[in-house]
Amino acid sequence: MTSIDVYRDRLQRAQVALQPSGLELLCVGPGSDLIYLTGIDAHLSERLNLLLVPASGRPSFVIPRLEAPNIAGKADLVDIHAWEETESPSELAAKLAQSAKSVAVGDQLHAIFLLRLQEAMPTASWTPGGPVLRDLRMRKDAAEIESQREVAQRTDRAWAVFLESGPIAGLTEHGAMDRLSGLMAEQGINPMFGICASGPNSAAPHHHTGDRVIEAGDAVIFDFGGELDSYLSDMTRTVVIGEPSDEYRKVYEIVLRANQAAFEAVKPGVACEDVDRAARDLITEAGYGPSFIHRVGHGLGLDVHEEPYMVCGNTLLLAPGMVFSDEPGIYLEGRFGVRIEDTVVCTGDGAERLNSAAKDLTVMD
Amino acid sequence: MTSIDVYRDRLQRAQVALQPSGLELLCVGPGSDLIYLTGIDAHLSERLNLLLVPASGRPSFVIPRLEAPNIAGKADLVDIHAWEETESPSELAAKLAQSAKSVAVGDQLHAIFLLRLQEAMPTASWTPGGPVLRDLRMRKDAAEIESQREVAQRTDRAWAVFLESGPIAGLTEHGAMDRLSGLMAEQGINPMFGICASGPNSAAPHHHTGDRVIEAGDAVIFDFGGELDSYLSDMTRTVVIGEPSDEYRKVYEIVLRANQAAFEAVKPGVACEDVDRAARDLITEAGYGPSFIHRVGHGLGLDVHEEPYMVCGNTLLLAPGMVFSDEPGIYLEGRFGVRIEDTVVCTGDGAERLNSAAKDLTVMD
Repeated sequence: MTSIDVYRDRLQRAQVALQPSGLELLCVGPGSDLIYLTGIDAHLSERLNLLLVPASGRPSFVIPRLEAPNIAGKADLVDIHAWEETESPSELAAKLAQSAKSVAVGDQLHAIFLLRLQEAMPTASWTPGGPVLRDLRMRKDAAEIESQREVAQRTDRAWAVFLESGPIAGLTEHGAMDRLSGLMAEQGINPMFGICASGPNSAAPHHHTGDRVIEAGDAVIFDFGGELDSYLSDMTRTVVIGEPSDEYRKVYEIVLRANQAAFEAVKPGVACEDVDRAARDLITEAGYGPSFIHRVGHGLGLDVHEEPYMVCGNTLLLAPGMVFSDEPGIYLEGRFGVRIEDTVVCTGDGAERLNSAAKDLTVMD
Repeated sequence: MTSIDVYRDRLQRAQVALQPSGLELLCVGPGSDLIYLTGIDAHLSERLNLLLVPASGRPSFVIPRLEAPNIAGKADLVDIHAWEETESPSELAAKLAQSAKSVAVGDQLHAIFLLRLQEAMPTASWTPGGPVLRDLRMRKDAAEIESQREVAQRTDRAWAVFLESGPIAGLTEHGAMDRLSGLMAEQGINPMFGICASGPNSAAPHHHTGDRVIEAGDAVIFDFGGELDSYLSDMTRTVVIGEPSDEYRKVYEIVLRANQAAFEAVKPGVACEDVDRAARDLITEAGYGPSFIHRVGHGLGLDVHEEPYMVCGNTLLLAPGMVFSDEPGIYLEGRFGVRIEDTVVCTGDGAERLNSAAKDLTVMD
């Protein structure tokens, strides 16, 4: 349970972060930014819920009256302004904005609300709130890292049980993923997402899990994660059904080494793009560069994808407390793919893996 | 399985809907509008997925390269433009927009993408896409209504089994809701949401299901729904644990009559606000007007809340094929609340309930 003092501190740091760019107000709707700043898990719907954080002074929260009882406990943190079904919440928000001229908007606010706010505050200029909150959210504190370690370890355990849970050949991708999701739930974490991509489908990094039946000879990618106390896990393992081909062995070995190379590149002061490059150079030298078609990693926390991104062109420097994925992959269209992913935290002098599930070449039935 | 001809027709109707207001382009991100128009269940993340529908000509779809394999089957419907990890998808979208000056934006697009599009197309004006798509999405076709009937009936069956599943006193709200969600899953529908609000919590219409233990004398509201083939159910029943008080009986009876009054008000040509008024007048005359603190209903389909809204001030006229909730409630702060909700479809000459679960005063142990 995060204390109100932590939220108060985060709100104050957000206010400080507004000031260098001359921003007067930050507007945040339901989602991860709101949970981070206030702990309010607001209802995402067509009814406006909006946190307004001025560069100085007390934050306000605009909420439909019928949902106001849910945040009665937050009255010490924010001024609560409930609106009736027949009122315009954008007009209410505009009033609370006190003629702010330069407004940052949380990334996940729905466009309909932004357009209405823009209409209600026609002279204001609007800018993404991501950069304002990025420095806060990227640098996890000890409690956040402990939450991420716990959810990662439970995900590891679900995977370990899955490997001993019997054959998956003959199951559909959905059937196999359902089994794995059930094992996550048994570990007390809330299954949040899961890709099972089998055979040729494994060559599509974001394959939609479907009804293809897993069969002998398939590479099968499992990319999955769960939630505990709002923080997420995200790991990927690739298995093969029965005896692997020589090329599978070769590709698997390269991806495994690329995962290790990216991990070894992580330490404070290193640019994010250099973590990507460490994995990419290795895969390119091995002759598979064009088949590694995504960045090597993304930040992880309250969102499954968040800053910092380990991608070519990102010169942001790593710092202690940053948590992100290390997930190189090689995808051979029409044939198979291999991806191996751990969650990693940047420490004072290097990196620590939050996942510890084995990554040796694994054969399943 | 919706055929490509249905999507082609919907896209063409969206193009026609743009023209009266002089809109040149509609931009739609992942979510219900996209599923409605194309059947594409795109990945919602920090990577832009965007459908661009010009007022005439062929629609385009902007997608990260690593997700492009997922929509290969849609190449007949839209031109697919995949972007690489190091490219700017907003610039790509701006190029495809061909200098459109007046752009409608799907309601659920994340603000970060709208702000980037606004930056990449600085001379364009931007307007909500909701009104453009509203007329299409509100009027469900026969196949859509059949989907909604099926998911509603399965939800009814889950509720019927729940009523026979044993005592709920002694369970937490989470425990009771988990049981009901499991029963929805047993009916082959995907549980999507559920509120269990017990005792004084039942007076908060959007209560967050929590760890309060249900006890004798409680009113307990269950508001729940599931998904089947992308369409949603949404129903609410209120039960009481043990012998109800006289006031509970009285309030229950009023809410039940208000539910019936709203239902009876539904027919083509009636204004949405008059459906709300039918329930509200009845509750007001019974002396509980100030305790009915929300609109009587909302549209239901691919979204759990969508147009049309049965709310005071909404003069939109009902038409056959509109599907919405009928859910009056009375909330007595600190004591208890009662809400009764069915899904209703407007027919050629009146209305039909898609839910048929009993609504008599129900006592559970």
